[in-house]
Amino acid sequence: MLDLSRFDQVRALRWEGDHLAILDQRKLPFVTEWLTLDTVESVFTAIRELKVRGAPAIGIAAAYGVLLAQIRGEDVAAAIAYLKTSRPTAVNLFWALTRTSKASDLASEARAIEREDLAANYQMASAGAALLPDTCSVLTICNTGSLATAGLGTALGVIRAGFAQGKIKQVYACETRPWLQGARLTAWELNQDQIPVGLIADSAAAHLMRLGRVSWVIAGADRICANGDTANKIGTYQLAIAARHHGLGFMIVAPSSTVDVKTAHGDAIEIEERDGTELLSINGVQSAAPGTATWNPVFDVTPVSLISAIVTEKGVWRAGDGPLDVLL
Amino acid sequence: MLDLSRFDQVRALRWEGDHLAILDQRKLPFVTEWLTLDTVESVFTAIRELKVRGAPAIGIAAAYGVLLAQIRGEDVAAAIAYLKTSRPTAVNLFWALTRTSKASDLASEARAIEREDLAANYQMASAGAALLPDTCSVLTICNTGSLATAGLGTALGVIRAGFAQGKIKQVYACETRPWLQGARLTAWELNQDQIPVGLIADSAAAHLMRLGRVSWVIAGADRICANGDTANKIGTYQLAIAARHHGLGFMIVAPSSTVDVKTAHGDAIEIEERDGTELLSINGVQSAAPGTATWNPVFDVTPVSLISAIVTEKGVWRAGDGPLDVLL
Repeated sequence: MLDLSRFDQVRALRWEGDHLAILDQRKLPFVTEWLTLDTVESVFTAIRELKVRGAPAIGIAAAYGVLLAQIRGEDVAAAIAYLKTSRPTAVNLFWALTRTSKASDLASEARAIEREDLAANYQMASAGAALLPDTCSVLTICNTGSLATAGLGTALGVIRAGFAQGKIKQVYACETRPWLQGARLTAWELNQDQIPVGLIADSAAAHLMRLGRVSWVIAGADRICANGDTANKIGTYQLAIAARHHGLGFMIVAPSSTVDVKTAHGDAIEIEERDGTELLSINGVQSAAPGTATWNPVFDVTPVSLISAIVTEKGVWRAGDGPLDVLL
Repeated sequence: MLDLSRFDQVRALRWEGDHLAILDQRKLPFVTEWLTLDTVESVFTAIRELKVRGAPAIGIAAAYGVLLAQIRGEDVAAAIAYLKTSRPTAVNLFWALTRTSKASDLASEARAIEREDLAANYQMASAGAALLPDTCSVLTICNTGSLATAGLGTALGVIRAGFAQGKIKQVYACETRPWLQGARLTAWELNQDQIPVGLIADSAAAHLMRLGRVSWVIAGADRICANGDTANKIGTYQLAIAARHHGLGFMIVAPSSTVDVKTAHGDAIEIEERDGTELLSINGVQSAAPGTATWNPVFDVTPVSLISAIVTEKGVWRAGDGPLDVLL
């Protein structure tokens, strides 16, 4: 098995026995600050305010949030109901909370969710990299690395494995407005790994493709519907359209907990719209004309017809394969 | 004729008899600062550093730059050669400098270039708005308004006319990274005109289209090749692909001086790549992981096959019309 230990150095969540410590992802990479979350409310706020983000990491944090309720002698069912309202789009949150609601030993269950996520990422890294040609450059969006998961990452795990295997020569990262997860977090992770990364404006992706500089787009997912329609970071859909226009591969990488068989297709997914202030400033610096109205959806839906392959830890679905059972 | 005077309040360039005054577009709309340009070098730097920007406005500024050389008793031919190297992609710069090189009265010629640009914008506004349905919402990119031209604007002129005619109900503006011309300049112009504008992340355009919230994309141009391939702000190509995917109209609006019959097709256009610091910081505040490599092309090429209509002051070309002669 491929040794990816060199690429799996960062942890964004750490259970400390009586509290959850998280790396504050609003401030990374400029400030490295660990936050102590010791109440359900603090976990809720951390999720809501993107101090912890990334669908798998949100699920893990929420599970520890329920454990905190138990430790503090609070109503566990109420904590679960409350945490479910923290963010609407990523299904891993609901999946993890449902698991905790059925668990007899909450501490074991939360740790299992975290451990299984890490193991899943290693399996997906290997399976996804196997889909890539011998030599290629790839484009990714948002942050899907160690910071977004229990470690290694989903799409970024595939990229790490593809680089370790000598297949990937160059990674391009969309800066990912408005929150700049690509510019701040993905660039930071890849720089640490000494994996060549070129940061681009989100608007430059199609031009990059037209010049033949990438052959695959690799993205994560916040929810995969029963028919394969996939919700992910705003901009993913635009990349998928452009990838299809240029005849490129488009790969979605996410743990099987992201597959939401109860949601038939993408139109049924609630897309979170966040406050427009995220579009009016960049890292606290005003970036738009004062008083400007905004529209700030932070996810979009890529129809399955634009997806070449979906990878979970259970298997690989390829376009034309029919039902997604192999992913579950 | 439609009265657009309410929408034509702003001027970004003003010839003052012995110098050119420009509104510093690096600082707008947060700081309103007029700069005095009284040497060829100061005009060159203003163009190079985007203090003046927008293809038509660059051409006008360059013409006045040549006039400044004459006033100061400098070598006019050398000034023209020098100013041609300020930016590579927009052809209006070269067109205006060629006009000045043939003029007997430089002051008259520079004023004529400015006056004709304003008149052209009124003609294009009317012709472009006539292409729109009775009720619609539109999406635009970058800034193509009074700030980018002698006044009124190209694509934004069409939008102003469409709004004045009661056709356009809502405008969406891409923020236009990295330089945020949409967020800073277009939003500022439309806010002043009380034309409803919603600012979106560049990555949200396809999602907006999928929801049926816009029916036309209207953009400017920096160079239109003999075959209709069009260079414009980075991201325009991505919008054109997405517009085609959703069956929407895609309109290019630019004065006839933007048509470069000597360039056969888009692959022959030199695309300016600017320093990556534009992607690494905002107003001196870091926005990306330190030391990250970048790729920062600031224009791209939209092939004519993705364009529904091209509007100049001379006429309207529609997809399927054949040669572009009607635009010249």
